[in-house]
Amino acid sequence: MTPADPQTKGELALIARLRRELAPAAESGAPAAGDVPFGDDMAAVPGIPGLLWTVDMLMDGVDFESGRHAWYDVGRKAMGASLSDCAAMAARPLAALCAVALSDAMTMEDALDLHRGARDCGVDFGCPIVGGDTNSWNEPTVVSITVVARTEEGRAPVLRSGAQPGDHVYLTGPVGGSRSGRHLHPQPRIETALALNRELTPHAMIDISDGLALDLWRVLESSRCGAVIDERQLAALVHADAVELAKSSGRPASEHGLYDGEDFELIVVLPREADVHRCRSLGLLPLGEIVMDQGLWMQRPDGGRVPVERRGWEHFR
Amino acid sequence: MTPADPQTKGELALIARLRRELAPAAESGAPAAGDVPFGDDMAAVPGIPGLLWTVDMLMDGVDFESGRHAWYDVGRKAMGASLSDCAAMAARPLAALCAVALSDAMTMEDALDLHRGARDCGVDFGCPIVGGDTNSWNEPTVVSITVVARTEEGRAPVLRSGAQPGDHVYLTGPVGGSRSGRHLHPQPRIETALALNRELTPHAMIDISDGLALDLWRVLESSRCGAVIDERQLAALVHADAVELAKSSGRPASEHGLYDGEDFELIVVLPREADVHRCRSLGLLPLGEIVMDQGLWMQRPDGGRVPVERRGWEHFR
Repeated sequence: MTPADPQTKGELALIARLRRELAPAAESGAPAAGDVPFGDDMAAVPGIPGLLWTVDMLMDGVDFESGRHAWYDVGRKAMGASLSDCAAMAARPLAALCAVALSDAMTMEDALDLHRGARDCGVDFGCPIVGGDTNSWNEPTVVSITVVARTEEGRAPVLRSGAQPGDHVYLTGPVGGSRSGRHLHPQPRIETALALNRELTPHAMIDISDGLALDLWRVLESSRCGAVIDERQLAALVHADAVELAKSSGRPASEHGLYDGEDFELIVVLPREADVHRCRSLGLLPLGEIVMDQGLWMQRPDGGRVPVERRGWEHFR
Repeated sequence: MTPADPQTKGELALIARLRRELAPAAESGAPAAGDVPFGDDMAAVPGIPGLLWTVDMLMDGVDFESGRHAWYDVGRKAMGASLSDCAAMAARPLAALCAVALSDAMTMEDALDLHRGARDCGVDFGCPIVGGDTNSWNEPTVVSITVVARTEEGRAPVLRSGAQPGDHVYLTGPVGGSRSGRHLHPQPRIETALALNRELTPHAMIDISDGLALDLWRVLESSRCGAVIDERQLAALVHADAVELAKSSGRPASEHGLYDGEDFELIVVLPREADVHRCRSLGLLPLGEIVMDQGLWMQRPDGGRVPVERRGWEHFR
């Protein structure tokens, strides 16, 4: 699979092609100070320093199931997913637009509940819905939320591309098994991210939407380095939902921790000298270390290293 | 049908409910200077004067037909629809985000063509795509484009709500029959709108996406007044495509002019004293006049007035 083959599918190949075709400048040289590379969690608004924006689209049957999930929760999840992108860049959300293609089967109350969920999640994080686009059709419902956000005075957004060998890798919370229900109640780590950017100057951050392994790979590729995950630290980071899920899925809980998506926790890469006590008081949990060699490995307690697959949730396969 | 009945459907009723539930302040009093009411063509970005944004979502089978239309044209239309909102507010587009739910049936080249169309239309109007969200599913394709735009130095955005009795109503071009093919090649009237806002201080503008009659009704309702369309002037404004379509549809060409959607021309409401020669040189075509009585009428050549129905393209019925 090479991204140059026009028939090769896969979201990552598509994004690579789009980066080349839509943002040729980003390919040809180093970005200027303050620039945000195409494909990061948010994009910069040209000409307005410190202003960032992001869009997330959720589809019935893929990101939620209208038969099982309340419309209110679907709305909360849609807003939470976009706000989590703000956390990943250490930006404070300002406002949102909500565009929907509503299934004809929905009632007016369903449509309102969807918007109420999005509104309430937004209000929790200071992000009112100020507009949108309402459509309907005879197909499953789609929700797309755009959020605009601002970095704090004097702080640059935290990119994916700044990880350096020797840096420490943390998570803002345990991961895996989110699909058991947690994915509908994302808690975007905005305040943690802002405090981190203010006090500890992270080298890189990303939110975990497609799985810890795949999203960590993205940081490593953007930063042109590698990482080693400590197996014991990972075990301490696996969510109780993943342990529970492992009983029925037949897969180890650690696999759910590595490859399940939609946790909306952050991967935080901090300089080695970052204050460990402050990390702990901000709720950060250690996971591993950045290394020079490109790749991702798991460090076994016996000292051996095994490669970690570059997989997770990927669209357009 | 009253918007207060929770089971009443219809996009307009939904928007009315959303306005009440999402933007309670907008209901309770007059907006502050510089505010943009919820439901206008674009929304203001809170805290950043002069910055506006809009989102438009297009769905296969509703706004385009993938079996008949080239993906490149679909992309152009999606970008054009959002840029037309910028024209309606007299704002200059800065950048776009493009979110997609791609049908699994699409190839990589299809997906790229869709984005290339959007990119090329954006580039024509100084609006690069700087990010987005790529998803796929086993359902028809959805494209959602968000655009951020800026009013010119010292100019306020043109709202829907400023029409006053005695004002003249113009269109930026002929309307009707757009679905014969023109709807895939929107020409957002950005430069015309900026020049108008600079030189003639329009009282109200809107772009015609859901049909001349319905979109003019929206201006009248926002402005709490009425309008009289001159039947002879309307006849001169009916697009040749509508005349052609009338031959097979069995409906008068003027009906296509009034009720067909997706023209992406602007309805422009100018103060009575606006320079007629400049209006002409900007390509404006006269349509009628704003009156105090709320409603919309057609003035017959014999002097009689007949009401114009409040209908057009409406989602979520």
